[in-house]
Amino acid sequence: MSDEQLNNLAFDASDWQLNHGSLLKVIDRAREDLVVAKPVGVTLFPTLFPRVLFNEALALQETYNKLYTAIAEDEDWLQTTLRALIETDLLADVLWGIHLEVKEEGYVQAISLGIFRSDYMLHVQPAVPGGSRQDIQIKQVEFNTISCAGGVHGNKVSDMHRYLHRTGSHSPQKLSTRPVGLSMSNYPLNHTITSLISALSAAHEEYGASRSSNVSQTCTVFIVQPNNFNIADERPIEYALWGQSPPIPTYRIMFGQDVLESLSLTPTRELLYLPPNRPSSDPPLEVSVIYLRAGFEVIEYDEVGRACRLLLERSRAIKCPSILSHLTTFKKVQQELTMPETLERYLSVEEAAKIAKTFAPILPMDESHLGLRARELAMNPRAAKGYILKPSLEGGGHNVYGVDIPKFINEIPPESFSSYILMEKITSPLLYNILVSPRGTHEGPVISELGVFGFCLWKRNESRHPSDGGLHEKAEIVRDLKPSWSFKTKSANVNEMSVVKGYGCFDSPALVDRETFANHCRQNTQGKSSE
Amino acid sequence: MSDEQLNNLAFDASDWQLNHGSLLKVIDRAREDLVVAKPVGVTLFPTLFPRVLFNEALALQETYNKLYTAIAEDEDWLQTTLRALIETDLLADVLWGIHLEVKEEGYVQAISLGIFRSDYMLHVQPAVPGGSRQDIQIKQVEFNTISCAGGVHGNKVSDMHRYLHRTGSHSPQKLSTRPVGLSMSNYPLNHTITSLISALSAAHEEYGASRSSNVSQTCTVFIVQPNNFNIADERPIEYALWGQSPPIPTYRIMFGQDVLESLSLTPTRELLYLPPNRPSSDPPLEVSVIYLRAGFEVIEYDEVGRACRLLLERSRAIKCPSILSHLTTFKKVQQELTMPETLERYLSVEEAAKIAKTFAPILPMDESHLGLRARELAMNPRAAKGYILKPSLEGGGHNVYGVDIPKFINEIPPESFSSYILMEKITSPLLYNILVSPRGTHEGPVISELGVFGFCLWKRNESRHPSDGGLHEKAEIVRDLKPSWSFKTKSANVNEMSVVKGYGCFDSPALVDRETFANHCRQNTQGKSSE
Repeated sequence: MSDEQLNNLAFDASDWQLNHGSLLKVIDRAREDLVVAKPVGVTLFPTLFPRVLFNEALALQETYNKLYTAIAEDEDWLQTTLRALIETDLLADVLWGIHLEVKEEGYVQAISLGIFRSDYMLHVQPAVPGGSRQDIQIKQVEFNTISCAGGVHGNKVSDMHRYLHRTGSHSPQKLSTRPVGLSMSNYPLNHTITSLISALSAAHEEYGASRSSNVSQTCTVFIVQPNNFNIADERPIEYALWGQSPPIPTYRIMFGQDVLESLSLTPTRELLYLPPNRPSSDPPLEVSVIYLRAGFEVIEYDEVGRACRLLLERSRAIKCPSILSHLTTFKKVQQELTMPETLERYLSVEEAAKIAKTFAPILPMDESHLGLRARELAMNPRAAKGYILKPSLEGGGHNVYGVDIPKFINEIPPESFSSYILMEKITSPLLYNILVSPRGTHEGPVISELGVFGFCLWKRNESRHPSDGGLHEKAEIVRDLKPSWSFKTKSANVNEMSVVKGYGCFDSPALVDRETFANHCRQNTQGKSSE
Repeated sequence: MSDEQLNNLAFDASDWQLNHGSLLKVIDRAREDLVVAKPVGVTLFPTLFPRVLFNEALALQETYNKLYTAIAEDEDWLQTTLRALIETDLLADVLWGIHLEVKEEGYVQAISLGIFRSDYMLHVQPAVPGGSRQDIQIKQVEFNTISCAGGVHGNKVSDMHRYLHRTGSHSPQKLSTRPVGLSMSNYPLNHTITSLISALSAAHEEYGASRSSNVSQTCTVFIVQPNNFNIADERPIEYALWGQSPPIPTYRIMFGQDVLESLSLTPTRELLYLPPNRPSSDPPLEVSVIYLRAGFEVIEYDEVGRACRLLLERSRAIKCPSILSHLTTFKKVQQELTMPETLERYLSVEEAAKIAKTFAPILPMDESHLGLRARELAMNPRAAKGYILKPSLEGGGHNVYGVDIPKFINEIPPESFSSYILMEKITSPLLYNILVSPRGTHEGPVISELGVFGFCLWKRNESRHPSDGGLHEKAEIVRDLKPSWSFKTKSANVNEMSVVKGYGCFDSPALVDRETFANHCRQNTQGKSSE
């Protein structure tokens, strides 16, 4: 691809982005009146991905929804699993404390909304001499249950790739490493924005009419972080809710003080809201759904932050997520699910097998037998090479990679070891693409991550006991929506997938058969490990 | 409205703009890799406008289409009208020269596409003592036939106002000067983007199948200016054409050298184009429609620019606009149409009367009797106060206002006087609004301008002679599409409506009855004159 061709394509892409809100807001705290935006990092082409594995990941989501809703209602198991973490991790501690406080008073809303995102990378299982041939699988990186981002961006970039394909900008001669003959059927349609709206609408509908006297209207609220540069991933959902027929009133409220000032509970714990643009003589609205795009970082939980989350959790509104569901996002849960027979507590043997297949080996870092073994691995420079040390937090970032682990471990107090898990590195095949981000242009080997969005409404059913098969099913799924997806890609040379830092770029998969895929990935036998 | 309320509303508006491509691209020639955009100037509220006059302006457009297509095919009249201008104005001269050159060879395409915009301001006709009461009318500011901009921006800002209304941000207490009880029915739906697409699609369809051998595909081309900051007003039209089913291939080509390098004529003057993203072994596409968003400034017509426009005009593609239609946009034409009996050459007496009612008095500045009178007025500081001196160019800007006219007239050579017209100032009623633009926030009295978009396809019919009624109707209208509109508003304290300079802001009208309107405009009897 010539420089001129590349420039033209990048130019077309950025114009498309400016016209479709595929942007990051530039926040300059020194100049509040300055409103500027720049395109979010994107790939110029879709990255190849095996169709069969893409379909497998999407098909798995219904079972993952079942699993995570079951865990979220299995307080005993959660408590046992998180006990050590609650003792050492401030966020786990504050969330658990809020749960206990609300439990004491009694929960008034049995229904919760889950907007989950299960992230996968491709993993190359090397050929065994004389045994099975090399195999490519999907391995789960993490499972997110709060504030799952990237859905809108992923949808838009997917639309952009389809546009660029339609206009001929993705013709084969543009990127020599691409298979010839890719057609629109290789570009899966992304409907994540629609799915997000359907999920929130379904919860709003499930909530039903307002219950408090003198209130006739219900509304959803988005609880957001201040100085948000990522409005383009949130606002389109609000606009679409307002655009429903009839409109679903939707308001943004900042986590913390603003929540405490503008929301209040009735004696029967309906959550009331008076939008700032309404006269104070107007009746308030009753909140049907709380969608959290904030409250996932420990720094947000000062005294005011804790009071804010407590108020929300105490209310009758449907939470996305509830505190217990939020707690399932901790890496410790992900690790514990890999332990023998845990899955079988919630899933049939067949279901458990399918889910377990996507697990990369994960070790605890606690004082259990396995945990002590993991500590040894983490302190050994040679052994540590094959691992990633992850804090048991929501979302990516803060990870420590391979050879950096021993030094890091030596510098933190041993009592905080339990806040980490040790995950085997996933050996990803390298594909080829061009990334354009505020950080510049990268052309070369890349690694992708598929995020599968799951959407479901479930109801806590305390009266249910383990069923005939012995399954713990206190979560009764009320609505299960079709899953959707996002796709991110980074240079193979960096560890982090962070889009905000300009490493990761939104992308879409070009779905091909296994053979075409194998022919187009680079050096996948020596597979540069990364995540 | 408190500062906090204002800030919240402005914040909501700019977020909406970032998410909907209601933006201007920031062009920094020093840093080509920098891609940033900022919101285009907008009003926070719609500005009041009498419903009856809004409807009148839209209803008039069909007649204006008839008039301007008739003029565009009346070469004799155009030549007589523009003769003096062609002698003094470089742009008129170069366009006329291209017309003559193509005419000599023979035009091969009888069909043209018109995307027109007729701009109006409200005018207060003072009450006559003992006679008629004060009256508000629409007066035409100008009629544009090339590169009519603002359609996409206007559509989006109108959508934004409807969104802000829906969310309650436009409730009456927010702006004390607004009438109570405005509802969505006061906010007319804007469909300009759809109309632009329909017009271009209709022309593409009218062109029909490709005629040149070995070419199977047709496409439309947008001829654009380099370093375009206003992509958000053009690109959405392209995207929508690509999004038609089946897609209408649409390409942007820069006016000048790029046109000469990438487009070529067959011996029978089909216009062929090979997109830069196609392999050179691919067959070219045949251009069905040329949509000019460039070529309206004299500076574009160096030798290369002239050759570019000549190539386009010679081709079989349907032009939007043709050279003759382009020439009708000169203010000299607008002025000449105000002369007695000119309208009757093309329109019925009833039609002519309706059109004439929208004319503000305009005087020529040539050596005719009227022109000499106008020169006297222009040189007299007291008389000049009531006038605007306008160069006979396309579009706004470059105007000289009131008391500045005599000094200006004294500084330019008398032989260029004919390039100007002298228009009586329109006395606009003052409304109240809040403007937010990169220039800052303005709250106070404002003046608006309604642009009515007309769309039609017509066919030159040389064989037609003046009909029974004596009308000159060499233009046979093939398709007349429903008109649409844009709306701009500026502070009453500035003369210019320029959005690019941050004075004018995109807006939408809140349609009310005459009485409500009269009750809410400020000091319209002493009506600050402006335009």
